[in-house]
Amino acid sequence: MPGRHSRSIATVCLSGDLTDKLEAAANIGFDGVEIFENDLLTFNGSPADVRKMAADLGLAITIFQPFRDFEAMPEPQRRRNLDRAERKFDVMQALGTDLVLVCSNVQEACMDDPARAAADLREMAERAAQRGLRVGFEALAWGRHTRRWHQAWDIVTRADHPALGLIVDSFHTLALKDDPSGLAALPGERIFFVQLADAPLYDMDVLQWSRHYRNFPGQGQLPISGFLRAVLASGYAGPLSLEIFNDEFRAAPVRQTARDGLRSLILAEAEAAPTLPAAALPPAPRMSGVEFLEFAVNDASRQQLGSFLGQLGFQRAGQHRSKAVELYRQGSVNLVLNSEPDSAAAGHFEMHGPSVCAMGFAVNDAAAAARRAEALLCASWNEKRGVGERPLPALRAPNGALVLLVEHHPGRPSLWEEDFHLLPTAPAAAPPLLGIDHVTQALAPGQMDGFVLFYRGVFGLEPEPQLDLPDPQGLVHSRALVNAAGTVRLPLNTSEARETATGRFISAAAGAGVHHIAFLAGDAAASVTGMSGRGAPLLPIPENYYDDLAARFGLEDAELAALQRLNLLYDQDQDGGGFVHAYTANFADRFFFEVVQRRGNYRQFGANNAAVRMAAQARFEARRRG
Amino acid sequence: MPGRHSRSIATVCLSGDLTDKLEAAANIGFDGVEIFENDLLTFNGSPADVRKMAADLGLAITIFQPFRDFEAMPEPQRRRNLDRAERKFDVMQALGTDLVLVCSNVQEACMDDPARAAADLREMAERAAQRGLRVGFEALAWGRHTRRWHQAWDIVTRADHPALGLIVDSFHTLALKDDPSGLAALPGERIFFVQLADAPLYDMDVLQWSRHYRNFPGQGQLPISGFLRAVLASGYAGPLSLEIFNDEFRAAPVRQTARDGLRSLILAEAEAAPTLPAAALPPAPRMSGVEFLEFAVNDASRQQLGSFLGQLGFQRAGQHRSKAVELYRQGSVNLVLNSEPDSAAAGHFEMHGPSVCAMGFAVNDAAAAARRAEALLCASWNEKRGVGERPLPALRAPNGALVLLVEHHPGRPSLWEEDFHLLPTAPAAAPPLLGIDHVTQALAPGQMDGFVLFYRGVFGLEPEPQLDLPDPQGLVHSRALVNAAGTVRLPLNTSEARETATGRFISAAAGAGVHHIAFLAGDAAASVTGMSGRGAPLLPIPENYYDDLAARFGLEDAELAALQRLNLLYDQDQDGGGFVHAYTANFADRFFFEVVQRRGNYRQFGANNAAVRMAAQARFEARRRG
Repeated sequence: MPGRHSRSIATVCLSGDLTDKLEAAANIGFDGVEIFENDLLTFNGSPADVRKMAADLGLAITIFQPFRDFEAMPEPQRRRNLDRAERKFDVMQALGTDLVLVCSNVQEACMDDPARAAADLREMAERAAQRGLRVGFEALAWGRHTRRWHQAWDIVTRADHPALGLIVDSFHTLALKDDPSGLAALPGERIFFVQLADAPLYDMDVLQWSRHYRNFPGQGQLPISGFLRAVLASGYAGPLSLEIFNDEFRAAPVRQTARDGLRSLILAEAEAAPTLPAAALPPAPRMSGVEFLEFAVNDASRQQLGSFLGQLGFQRAGQHRSKAVELYRQGSVNLVLNSEPDSAAAGHFEMHGPSVCAMGFAVNDAAAAARRAEALLCASWNEKRGVGERPLPALRAPNGALVLLVEHHPGRPSLWEEDFHLLPTAPAAAPPLLGIDHVTQALAPGQMDGFVLFYRGVFGLEPEPQLDLPDPQGLVHSRALVNAAGTVRLPLNTSEARETATGRFISAAAGAGVHHIAFLAGDAAASVTGMSGRGAPLLPIPENYYDDLAARFGLEDAELAALQRLNLLYDQDQDGGGFVHAYTANFADRFFFEVVQRRGNYRQFGANNAAVRMAAQARFEARRRG
Repeated sequence: MPGRHSRSIATVCLSGDLTDKLEAAANIGFDGVEIFENDLLTFNGSPADVRKMAADLGLAITIFQPFRDFEAMPEPQRRRNLDRAERKFDVMQALGTDLVLVCSNVQEACMDDPARAAADLREMAERAAQRGLRVGFEALAWGRHTRRWHQAWDIVTRADHPALGLIVDSFHTLALKDDPSGLAALPGERIFFVQLADAPLYDMDVLQWSRHYRNFPGQGQLPISGFLRAVLASGYAGPLSLEIFNDEFRAAPVRQTARDGLRSLILAEAEAAPTLPAAALPPAPRMSGVEFLEFAVNDASRQQLGSFLGQLGFQRAGQHRSKAVELYRQGSVNLVLNSEPDSAAAGHFEMHGPSVCAMGFAVNDAAAAARRAEALLCASWNEKRGVGERPLPALRAPNGALVLLVEHHPGRPSLWEEDFHLLPTAPAAAPPLLGIDHVTQALAPGQMDGFVLFYRGVFGLEPEPQLDLPDPQGLVHSRALVNAAGTVRLPLNTSEARETATGRFISAAAGAGVHHIAFLAGDAAASVTGMSGRGAPLLPIPENYYDDLAARFGLEDAELAALQRLNLLYDQDQDGGGFVHAYTANFADRFFFEVVQRRGNYRQFGANNAAVRMAAQARFEARRRG
């Protein structure tokens, strides 16, 4: 595709052997791969075999890397290093790639002598040039003397050889908080290669950080866009290549990682070069909320869930015109129970039991959002529909769950009016719910980064910092994606510990995802009073919690007693915003509901109460199981 | 027990709810517990219930903790904090503990004013004293102004109140590389409480390090003994208490963690106060090697394994006098195949299939080693034995595997002569093996720290730094325990990734442990030539590996060709020591053998070749499985 940069991925990002890696990269749509030397050494085939395999798959081999500890060594290492380079040039020619990455020397014996480093690299480049090869020099963030791109550039400039150029890597630059803006002033053709990697902001040894915690652009917290803008402003026209060392990626399914990688690269280029037509993406949608949640049920669980929802104050408010699908409603919360045979829901039920099989997001432009999702490699889905029923663009989340896109247009019939026979309902007894406050998904270990990228890339949601929540059986890691308006909040939970609540939801529902649905109430106490009166199973909270609450927030006795009577939890932020919330028991070990009330500008999820809630859930569910 | 310190553990170290935690602590043998406030808040019973439960279990409640962000706050927070303290005093009285831990304030609003901090703590101590309670003040390593023990001690001294004393914690002191030696000069009765925690040496933010990576004394790398010696020299007579925040402990079985904790405390006290009779332990044994490995087999696998061993050059050299147990021998390597019904081996076979069920260690004093193991809470085991057969003290490793202790005495019959009918064997064809070089165990995630403590504590082995080895399907973490003489080397491997070789061994053998047995050869090439000639299935190594070897080490062509012909791997250390090694195929998905030759003073395990080896194993085993 003209007008955009070639897209490449280093084989070290992907699990499996070299065959698995190349096949996955090609299949997902990368243009090329960096051959990481270790993947070649462990491969049971010659470099020529790799060249043929890549060619057959339509992949360029963009670079061979790394060549370590080369420059500014005393003799006899200097001569030995040049011999070593000749051996690797042989390999490169057999592989059919013309570029090798030399990363700055980390050896103690390395001399602090840029002129000598330049002379050595010039010698290597001259030998490379005799074979039609090129050498790129990169500053490792933990190099012995060369750590920053401008030091590497200084050495490249001194060496002054056409077969020697600069290689820059967003991680090495941004991990040291080095300023990338000067890259824009470099002659673009002197930058031989560009590597991209993001990372969460950890305050730790940079080598360990780099080796274990990198992730794809958009999954971490480094300012990749600024780096990439500077690189592109130089006129650099070569590949953009991902180079990630990540313990989870090493163990993840290779296709999943490859897809996440290409998605991140498409997004990074679009964000850094929004005016480049070939890189442009349809805009992310404006989201006004979670329009509905859809549950996959069979006949038995439809009745049980309907009855549970009734206890929570929902009423059966509609019957789908052509399918075995029911609408339950309270205030502006829509819950859909789908028991239609031969549907996506039926397939979901087979795999996951009674559980949430789809989320409907209210967006301003469903078609544009669907195009954006497609450009970002999301699978789409077309459900069968009856005559006159509304087509809903649908896409699949990284775990296969469906996300449907719903538009509202004032003055036009709603989805519910179009597709459902709406039923008469009684007036609500309690003040009705105001909407869906947040929907929490339990993800298997290793899925968090992929989901962050999906919601951030496709929907423009912003990831919040990760929290560690103490379940009695281990830690639960939680990271929420939210929009600026606060109308969409999607916490993601994961846990390596299998006996935590999150771990149990993952295994019980085999990865269905959504396991926690929080309704927004104007008056949580009133809503919970109503639910309690209708016999809803609410989670009991221990008395000690309320004693501590009094000590922490100095609540008045009456207020405290009111909270305690209804098993309501309470939190407060530093600006005095408040959060009142209560939980139900689990439904069929698959999900539970929460009622939340937000006071002032409280934007969190009551993480301070998570330990109490999770301990109470463990106790309550153990008792229910007998 | 008079003469030793009371042994205590903070509830936060243990998984489960407060009932689980207290029961485990009592059952394993702790004298007391620190009640971590969060465990009380999440508990569905009153503080008086906790008091009763602890009393019924014979546990003292040694302290209530933490009370945070108290000292040196401006009004109105100061007054509110004193109100909060009164509420917590109520809880302490209901719990029946007289001591609260105040950790230094981390709030931005906290004033840098030791006099004011002292005045506030004096006021709190005065109020506590009115109820017969006491206050201990501890410097958090990340406190706003008070981070080191001598700062906390300065404030305690200024406050000058009998109900206010110092609390010290090895982690907070040693994480900042603070010098603990001055603690020896303090009046011991002014130290109110001592907390112990170790940690691996990570170069990272100290708060994150503390919250996630602490471990028990002896499991990490902090100089706990020096800290504890200084504390004890002060005359401190109170409890020694473990306070560990560790993600794996939170998810581990509570009894296992409690046992590891008490073992670490017994060991720490014995190491810090070796002259205190009540704290003394029998000495760790001198180990001269791994005397034998015992395999649990049934009839079919005994024949298969015997035939495999024959290919490796072993001969059937003995039959047990009273059991269905065979001895295979080569040089000084003894392998025992046990198919005796109703034995520990038979139980092991039931659970794990054909696999290593016991290791025999050659020690100088088996009885003393067994007493030491018993004092360190190891379960012992007595196997039935025939008349006149040698009793072998046996103990169980943390995963239940048996470790047997064998003595050699020059001039006396060996174990093999005593218990076996030795059979005539043919002269060895190749130069025989010299012994067992190392035995590697695959541990489920979360077991590493417990095993390190077991081998370090019971046998005096020293843990080496952890290595991360790249399997094609994820990282494998490896840490070896070795003795100074180099006669015993026990690498421990673990992997969170389930599809790595280590992950597969863990699940296939359901945690049997030993999966990799390395024999020491005087001439690896000769040994492997013999094995190959007898049809042993050796692991093929790809050609690319040898090309790189040539580039790295500048080996001569003939030497390289000889290595390649025999699928031998090669490594070299910085001092020119060399390592030549080759691997066999897996036996029944449970274990594989290695032949190693050490040149010069090479002390490692060829980790540089691990990626090539693990990729080759994955490929080879996938092909065998078809």
